[in-house]
Amino acid sequence: MGKSEVIKKTSVYFYDDFNFSECASDNLEECLSQKPAGSTSWINIPNSNDVKIIESLGEELDLHPLIIEDIINKGQRPKIEEFDKYLFIVLKMIDIDKNYELKDEQVSLVIMQDTVASCQEDPADVFSEVRERLRTNKGIIRKMGSDYLGYSLIDAIVDRYFVILEKLGDRIEDLEEELVSDPTISTLKAIHNIRRQVITLRRGVWPLREVLSYFDRCGSPLIDESTRIYIRDVYDHTVQIIDAIETNRDLLSGILDIYLTSVSNKMNEVMKFLTIIGTIFIPLTFIAGVYGMNFNYMPELREWWGYPMALIIMLIVGITMLLYFRRKKWI
Amino acid sequence: MGKSEVIKKTSVYFYDDFNFSECASDNLEECLSQKPAGSTSWINIPNSNDVKIIESLGEELDLHPLIIEDIINKGQRPKIEEFDKYLFIVLKMIDIDKNYELKDEQVSLVIMQDTVASCQEDPADVFSEVRERLRTNKGIIRKMGSDYLGYSLIDAIVDRYFVILEKLGDRIEDLEEELVSDPTISTLKAIHNIRRQVITLRRGVWPLREVLSYFDRCGSPLIDESTRIYIRDVYDHTVQIIDAIETNRDLLSGILDIYLTSVSNKMNEVMKFLTIIGTIFIPLTFIAGVYGMNFNYMPELREWWGYPMALIIMLIVGITMLLYFRRKKWI
Amino acid sequence: MGKSEVIKKTSVYFYDDFNFSECASDNLEECLSQKPAGSTSWINIPNSNDVKIIESLGEELDLHPLIIEDIINKGQRPKIEEFDKYLFIVLKMIDIDKNYELKDEQVSLVIMQDTVASCQEDPADVFSEVRERLRTNKGIIRKMGSDYLGYSLIDAIVDRYFVILEKLGDRIEDLEEELVSDPTISTLKAIHNIRRQVITLRRGVWPLREVLSYFDRCGSPLIDESTRIYIRDVYDHTVQIIDAIETNRDLLSGILDIYLTSVSNKMNEVMKFLTIIGTIFIPLTFIAGVYGMNFNYMPELREWWGYPMALIIMLIVGITMLLYFRRKKWI
Amino acid sequence: MGKSEVIKKTSVYFYDDFNFSECASDNLEECLSQKPAGSTSWINIPNSNDVKIIESLGEELDLHPLIIEDIINKGQRPKIEEFDKYLFIVLKMIDIDKNYELKDEQVSLVIMQDTVASCQEDPADVFSEVRERLRTNKGIIRKMGSDYLGYSLIDAIVDRYFVILEKLGDRIEDLEEELVSDPTISTLKAIHNIRRQVITLRRGVWPLREVLSYFDRCGSPLIDESTRIYIRDVYDHTVQIIDAIETNRDLLSGILDIYLTSVSNKMNEVMKFLTIIGTIFIPLTFIAGVYGMNFNYMPELREWWGYPMALIIMLIVGITMLLYFRRKKWI
Amino acid sequence: MGKSEVIKKTSVYFYDDFNFSECASDNLEECLSQKPAGSTSWINIPNSNDVKIIESLGEELDLHPLIIEDIINKGQRPKIEEFDKYLFIVLKMIDIDKNYELKDEQVSLVIMQDTVASCQEDPADVFSEVRERLRTNKGIIRKMGSDYLGYSLIDAIVDRYFVILEKLGDRIEDLEEELVSDPTISTLKAIHNIRRQVITLRRGVWPLREVLSYFDRCGSPLIDESTRIYIRDVYDHTVQIIDAIETNRDLLSGILDIYLTSVSNKMNEVMKFLTIIGTIFIPLTFIAGVYGMNFNYMPELREWWGYPMALIIMLIVGITMLLYFRRKKWI
Repeated sequence: MGKSEVIKKTSVYFYDDFNFSECASDNLEECLSQKPAGSTSWINIPNSNDVKIIESLGEELDLHPLIIEDIINKGQRPKIEEFDKYLFIVLKMIDIDKNYELKDEQVSLVIMQDTVASCQEDPADVFSEVRERLRTNKGIIRKMGSDYLGYSLIDAIVDRYFVILEKLGDRIEDLEEELVSDPTISTLKAIHNIRRQVITLRRGVWPLREVLSYFDRCGSPLIDESTRIYIRDVYDHTVQIIDAIETNRDLLSGILDIYLTSVSNKMNEVMKFLTIIGTIFIPLTFIAGVYGMNFNYMPELREWWGYPMALIIMLIVGITMLLYFRRKKWI
Repeated sequence: MGKSEVIKKTSVYFYDDFNFSECASDNLEECLSQKPAGSTSWINIPNSNDVKIIESLGEELDLHPLIIEDIINKGQRPKIEEFDKYLFIVLKMIDIDKNYELKDEQVSLVIMQDTVASCQEDPADVFSEVRERLRTNKGIIRKMGSDYLGYSLIDAIVDRYFVILEKLGDRIEDLEEELVSDPTISTLKAIHNIRRQVITLRRGVWPLREVLSYFDRCGSPLIDESTRIYIRDVYDHTVQIIDAIETNRDLLSGILDIYLTSVSNKMNEVMKFLTIIGTIFIPLTFIAGVYGMNFNYMPELREWWGYPMALIIMLIVGITMLLYFRRKKWI
Repeated sequence: MGKSEVIKKTSVYFYDDFNFSECASDNLEECLSQKPAGSTSWINIPNSNDVKIIESLGEELDLHPLIIEDIINKGQRPKIEEFDKYLFIVLKMIDIDKNYELKDEQVSLVIMQDTVASCQEDPADVFSEVRERLRTNKGIIRKMGSDYLGYSLIDAIVDRYFVILEKLGDRIEDLEEELVSDPTISTLKAIHNIRRQVITLRRGVWPLREVLSYFDRCGSPLIDESTRIYIRDVYDHTVQIIDAIETNRDLLSGILDIYLTSVSNKMNEVMKFLTIIGTIFIPLTFIAGVYGMNFNYMPELREWWGYPMALIIMLIVGITMLLYFRRKKWI
Repeated sequence: MGKSEVIKKTSVYFYDDFNFSECASDNLEECLSQKPAGSTSWINIPNSNDVKIIESLGEELDLHPLIIEDIINKGQRPKIEEFDKYLFIVLKMIDIDKNYELKDEQVSLVIMQDTVASCQEDPADVFSEVRERLRTNKGIIRKMGSDYLGYSLIDAIVDRYFVILEKLGDRIEDLEEELVSDPTISTLKAIHNIRRQVITLRRGVWPLREVLSYFDRCGSPLIDESTRIYIRDVYDHTVQIIDAIETNRDLLSGILDIYLTSVSNKMNEVMKFLTIIGTIFIPLTFIAGVYGMNFNYMPELREWWGYPMALIIMLIVGITMLLYFRRKKWI
Repeated sequence: MGKSEVIKKTSVYFYDDFNFSECASDNLEECLSQKPAGSTSWINIPNSNDVKIIESLGEELDLHPLIIEDIINKGQRPKIEEFDKYLFIVLKMIDIDKNYELKDEQVSLVIMQDTVASCQEDPADVFSEVRERLRTNKGIIRKMGSDYLGYSLIDAIVDRYFVILEKLGDRIEDLEEELVSDPTISTLKAIHNIRRQVITLRRGVWPLREVLSYFDRCGSPLIDESTRIYIRDVYDHTVQIIDAIETNRDLLSGILDIYLTSVSNKMNEVMKFLTIIGTIFIPLTFIAGVYGMNFNYMPELREWWGYPMALIIMLIVGITMLLYFRRKKWI
């Protein structure tokens, strides 16, 4: 989404209101030793599969062994845990590919007094805008502490959900149109697939709501009062996203109903038409069959008016049935 | 809904029990400088897409930057936020067009000690009645403070929901009748569409309930005790609307069942009838076929009673089958 | 529901343990001036559409303007509101007509220290039994205060729900039997209609539960401790009614399933039978067709055994197919 | 459920750790006058329809008139009510007959300091085991007070639920097998009936959960701390029963799906087979029809190879269609 | 899963940071008498059906009789109970066999100050890894107390759920593929079966959530603060498992929809094709029938162009119908 720079190395950024410096190296200890006094530092680890770096992070920040485990073992649910000296937050970053398959990636945040550490599974750079704001001193980010930086990172992830929702919404609209114009079994499969994606998205976002609600209300000394309104703002965004997801789920099941009904309707119409055709000709064929019998004494067969009479009878029967079907609104 | 005057300019109204004055200008600062001492002022901004005006509003009232953002960025969920000096409320105003499509528009309210600011997306004037009551000093509105004005504006929006619900309700009844008399696929689409509108309405009203509940119970010094009963009244109205929406949802799904059943019933009746016709003639055609065979030694063919006998056999078979079908209650 | 006297005029009843007097007049002020000291008074207004009377009630009892509005504007949801000097309760009285259509009517109660006011929409007399108990000093009603009178009025309304539930229950049983013996589209419509009535009933009773729960627990000084057990008793009845409503809803949806299944089963049986008949005769007709061909050199045609052989082949084919179908359990 | 003695008379049992005596008489006053000092008494009334006895019970134990009413008027929901001197508990005892119809019967318990009264609708003796333990001083029952006796009675009722659940579970399994081997409309009705029984059971057990939870946590001085663990135990049993009921409900709806699918599958298979038979012979019959035409100049008719050729063409057409159908996996 | 040693005898393990000893004997008293001072002991009973051992356990640890009953009577729901001197926890260990049938087994834990007792139904050794860690002093387990040991045992059970979930997930994916390639009634039965297994798993895991939540928050002095983070960790795992179960349930019902739709779609396509074939030949057969009639005066029959004309008419009618069907997109 956008061509942002992709940082593949572990990077540490130091900033306060006036200064900004960065250090990109996989030797975390060395980098952290450069920390200017009074500055806030942001440690961004783009590849949390690298166990060594995560363990050195744990040593540097003195993290609980279970935290290290949670960062390394992917597949955690979004959650927040409060410790004396830090908050640990797990989030899901969600990406969408061309086939509308969602891929979720775990992002772990550790928020301390003057440090934030963020660990991503893949080096896709969702945080480039935050980095830019830090570098260029745009907005208030460098005036605020580590709690605001934590908020900014979460906000960047939540903002991406909106992009994904929009894409899914567009796809649902396309499918709806396809459904009206030409419903096929592949449309059905696409609907089923989108439904599955919506479930995936839902699973990532629902627990986030609780996480942010706790983040806002936990009363940790790490979070400044002035930052809480921003947290509430991203909480509101999350609720909005959940709302949109639920509406999409409702619409999708409605779409499925429409699909099933219109397919079965179409099929019924076909069957009805065909049966009517068949039904009209069966009595006519019967009449033809009667005069095809080989009895010696069938007086009509000998008369000149026999043949036209038979044809006229057939015509009358056929038209009568047609009229009857029409009156019954069957055709 | 009614021919009320449509105010397209930003307007400020000053009032107390005895005086009323207004100022319509996009220069908010100038207008606010005219505020009489001790009066309550209502700033009505009919076009919140105009970023400049919203920003000047933010400056004048000293609003938090996030509030400004929330007013400008549409698509917020109804919510309430309490600050030291003001309450910020987001609502959805909902309009319905001829095709029963709902359109929702964000209305943002800021309620301060002696000022209320209301920002609409479109200049459709839902507030004209409130303005009229202010101008003509009707009711108690000029005797009460800004909290009561805030209530009055919310009440005006909620009242409109009733109008929309009634229109949707009438439409549902029409569709139900159409369904009984002549169900078509377009009836189904209309039902699906109304269902979608009901979902939209629901999404706008459900969070409003929490907003008003919080508005009532938040204990903000901005809200006078005597105003709370009015807030509870509009809260009751909201619950009533939610009730009606849920009932409509229930009825709509019941209608859909009836539709599907009656369509498939009709179709089955048709198919059954046609199959019966076919089934009666198939044995008859078989008999005709038998006597149409060209064997030299078929004694019946030579006898004078052969033909009438064949016809009588056919008649008997046909009537027997008809009677059998009737006894089985198939026709 | 019984032939109780229908009181169409506003009536005021004064009572204590020893005395009872009444005054029927639309001039409420005059009536209330006759109130004996120390007595409890019950003001029963059978026609709350008469705005004048309601307004004079408001003046006499010094009610909040919103209360007056709520009494006059029908369609309120059951609710309770606590004021300093009175409790305001809105209830739904529900009636059922011959076609099992429910009609709900709003009953508003104001319970004060020594006065209860009850406002009905229609003068149907649901309260005649309470009046009788007051007049004849039956039970403990005249020994208790206005809170017990309030309870008695609510109890009278809730008791009627049981009658309605029983009627609906009987109807559902009838429909179930009709369904087994002879399901038609009109049975379906009746089921749908009963379902709608159950929804209406549910809407009236669910909020009542909260109302009574609040009535019990609100701790208002207007309610004596000894009365609370009675309130809890009517609360229990309400929960019982809700229970029965939910069970009915469950049963109704089960019935609908049975209906749909048995109709489609029946239809399928018919179609299968008809198709089998058709299928047996089609090969037979084919054989007849073969020997109806006009080729010069068809040796069988010339032999005396040709015709019986053809008939026997047909017989064998027909019987074989019948046996096959039977073995497959299709017939 | 076992051949336990059925006690039809009101009986009173007095016991302490060392003594046990009983008195069976409908004259309650007389019986209770025999109560040994310091003993606990259990009054068991097997026929609570006898208003006289219940009223004399009310007098003897000084019960609130509403309690008397609740005991006499059956159809109460399971509930618990706490009074100063006693706890009043209503339970449902459930029996199952041969046709798997559940019959529920109200059991009312009054638990006082040294007395327990139990009122059953019918004299079916669910309490015989408790009586036996009292008589034979088995277990700790005679060492404990009236609260433990109350627990024992409730436990006896809850234990019976397990028996019923097991019977229903066996029946569900039988139906499932019947469904796989030979699904008929009567299987469907049996499933519907079992579903109804499960709903009935559920209605009796769900509120029991709250009753027991309250019984445990109410903190009444009537309940000794050492008894509470037993109450929690029967509470756990109730939750277990609810669990099993919910699982049964889930399974039953799954069974219904399987039934509907397999019936419609079977029917579709039949229809498909029959239609294929028909479809193969229709073109063949057409060919026979062509050579049954009476045109003078049809050269094939005169040739010796005409008839075998026609037969061969028919054979080829028939086999081709069969192969086509097979390749399409239709047969 | 994996080839871990299976211990069939009751074993007691004593450990502290420096020492480790074990005693395998069914004579519990003897074993426990060997307990080194200051050590923590783990009593592992692999066969809780052996009533004698459980009773001797009860005596040794002074357990409440109800606890003994709960350990012996299988079929308890997962639960936790807090006593003065110990916590009693019931869990479900779940195993899966080759046919994807789940088998649940009750595991009961008693956690005391310096002792943990674990009772399994079957001697399948889910705890071998814990035993190994104790023996080899791996990790922190020997540095922590009995609460950590309790956590480790629960963790071992919860970890097994992940294995089962994965197997079920793989199976669901297989079924989905089978469904797309070749849906049969046995696929449906497999789906139904998996659905039932998911329900079983769900029943075991849902209450575990509450159990662990209580375990974390109960504030029992038996649980050290430093252990609580581990309990929260296993709690998180449980929530994750519940999440995955719910998603599986969602997917399974979606799969069922796809199955039903694709089966009925396929069937409809077949029926449509067959009906079209039939419908095309019926009018043709009629034409053949007409010229098979035996009227003396049918001029066309005598002309040389009669036969080719009839054939050409048939050809035109057949092609016209084919084209019509194609234009209507029926074939």
